[in-house]
Amino acid sequence: MKNLTIALDAMGGDHAPQEICRGAIMACRDHADLDIILTGDGEKIKPCLSDASSEVLKRIRIVHATEVVAMSEQPTMAIRRKRDSSMRVAMEMVRAGEAQGCLSAGNTGAIVAGGVLVVGRLPTIDRPALGAPMPTINRWTFLLDVGASVRSKPVNLYQYAQMGNVYSKKILGVAEPEIALLSNGTEEIKGDEVVAEAREMLMKSSLNFKGYIEGDDLPWGRADVVVCDGFMGNVILKFGEGLMQGARSIIDEEMGHRFLPKIGILFMIPMVRALWSRFNYEKYGGTPLLGVKGTVIKAHGRSKAPAILGALSAARNFIIRDGVGQIREELE
Amino acid sequence: MKNLTIALDAMGGDHAPQEICRGAIMACRDHADLDIILTGDGEKIKPCLSDASSEVLKRIRIVHATEVVAMSEQPTMAIRRKRDSSMRVAMEMVRAGEAQGCLSAGNTGAIVAGGVLVVGRLPTIDRPALGAPMPTINRWTFLLDVGASVRSKPVNLYQYAQMGNVYSKKILGVAEPEIALLSNGTEEIKGDEVVAEAREMLMKSSLNFKGYIEGDDLPWGRADVVVCDGFMGNVILKFGEGLMQGARSIIDEEMGHRFLPKIGILFMIPMVRALWSRFNYEKYGGTPLLGVKGTVIKAHGRSKAPAILGALSAARNFIIRDGVGQIREELE
Repeated sequence: MKNLTIALDAMGGDHAPQEICRGAIMACRDHADLDIILTGDGEKIKPCLSDASSEVLKRIRIVHATEVVAMSEQPTMAIRRKRDSSMRVAMEMVRAGEAQGCLSAGNTGAIVAGGVLVVGRLPTIDRPALGAPMPTINRWTFLLDVGASVRSKPVNLYQYAQMGNVYSKKILGVAEPEIALLSNGTEEIKGDEVVAEAREMLMKSSLNFKGYIEGDDLPWGRADVVVCDGFMGNVILKFGEGLMQGARSIIDEEMGHRFLPKIGILFMIPMVRALWSRFNYEKYGGTPLLGVKGTVIKAHGRSKAPAILGALSAARNFIIRDGVGQIREELE
Repeated sequence: MKNLTIALDAMGGDHAPQEICRGAIMACRDHADLDIILTGDGEKIKPCLSDASSEVLKRIRIVHATEVVAMSEQPTMAIRRKRDSSMRVAMEMVRAGEAQGCLSAGNTGAIVAGGVLVVGRLPTIDRPALGAPMPTINRWTFLLDVGASVRSKPVNLYQYAQMGNVYSKKILGVAEPEIALLSNGTEEIKGDEVVAEAREMLMKSSLNFKGYIEGDDLPWGRADVVVCDGFMGNVILKFGEGLMQGARSIIDEEMGHRFLPKIGILFMIPMVRALWSRFNYEKYGGTPLLGVKGTVIKAHGRSKAPAILGALSAARNFIIRDGVGQIREELE
């Protein structure tokens, strides 16, 4: 069987290119069927590959790109103008069929713009969505849109639900995904006009639709797929991340000026490890851009090598299970 | 000096009337200048006061009300029709000047509806807002609106910022409150149309306006006042609550089937206590409804006595510092 190829933007993210390349090496070690094309400044990328075995190096190719899309750039403009940017070159490889998918930890807006302008929108999808698998107490919840758009029309939310359903079923392996709309209350009378109309549409669909859920249902994992607009999804995702980091920081601070907790924590190491592995989102790292004609995955800007490995594994999985074809089929 | 009087809806909330009455007793013990009117079913309230000292009992009066607004009722309808409900009767006492403020742990929508229909909107305020003080790492952040409305116009967000500024300065005692708008990114180009227009208005105002903040800025307390629409505020507040409860539940679960962590936790008790007191939102419990002609405070539906005490203290503080007059003055 022929290997599958992922084009990886080596220059995107806070720890590029070092950690991106390390992640690529790890992924090639883990997945014998994987070839990786690193796009970006060859001179900077080469030294980052010095640790790789010759077996792995055979499957990593560098495609030189002279430009980089910065995190702060206006997304559409950057993708249009920087034709030789590492991000755009990776996407061009997907369009040309030289790679089956691409991955970037760079500018989110530019990834979305490139997904639409370079890879292309699926004809039945009005707007693509970024979906994020979130660890919760009961299961992994797939939240979308987390920032491909800002606000949505009811039909967008409806399509997000459809795409989320396919992703949950075909990629995450949930038998009959429970779908819910994020709202300001569970009662029928809640929601704004957009959410209320999307609810009506979803009630009539063939989806396993559970109606509204609220903010406090999210951590408990009361649905497999949760749909909201990109503004809300962005704030929710970042708030959750910030809370985790904040909790860690204050515990460190409180531990810092106390002695007893330092003893206490020794007894808790196995538990902390168990919790960590249960909620380690890097395992499922990678936020797919759904609704475009190829596999486009965004990794977190702060990704280090393990997160890049996770995102590459997610991309590989999406390609093997034909995520794009499944969505195309379902929405026809 | 004459005592101040708060009308307390004894029938609102999950633990009414028992915990509401206990909270009233605690508040009268703590604040010698406080009189409380308990509204609701006298037959049910009386037994809940059996623990109170005669000194406290002298300052608690029961006003019988035959109806109760249920949590699931349509808010405006409930307030209009149930004229003898414990919630409406408490609000009528504010309108009549028999109480300087009122407090309820009941149906949030009905509290807002009653604030507008019974107590009355301030003429310069288009829409009132519910504001919630949130514990963060660096300070208490006052978030509004957390659910008085669903969606907002730019002018509403602008007025929320003004009211939040007054509350933060006059009630929470922040010298020069930093005000921020919650958005999907910090850059100027972010936000939807409503948020972007509110940003323009706030840039021109005399407020200490810091521009946009993101979801992950919230736990770090990067502003004293954070403004968003009621849909977003509701989801954020509940998500935060759900995460705290969820974290506690999984730690309990992991502890349950392990022995070592139980020893470990013993060493950590002082630290856990310190953290708890630092983030104990019951201290600041009580969500003021800003923009109405009287002191109207909502307590959490799950409030037990200490949370009711906290909310009563917040109400007392609001009355003493003339929160309503301050907002009226500032927005004229």
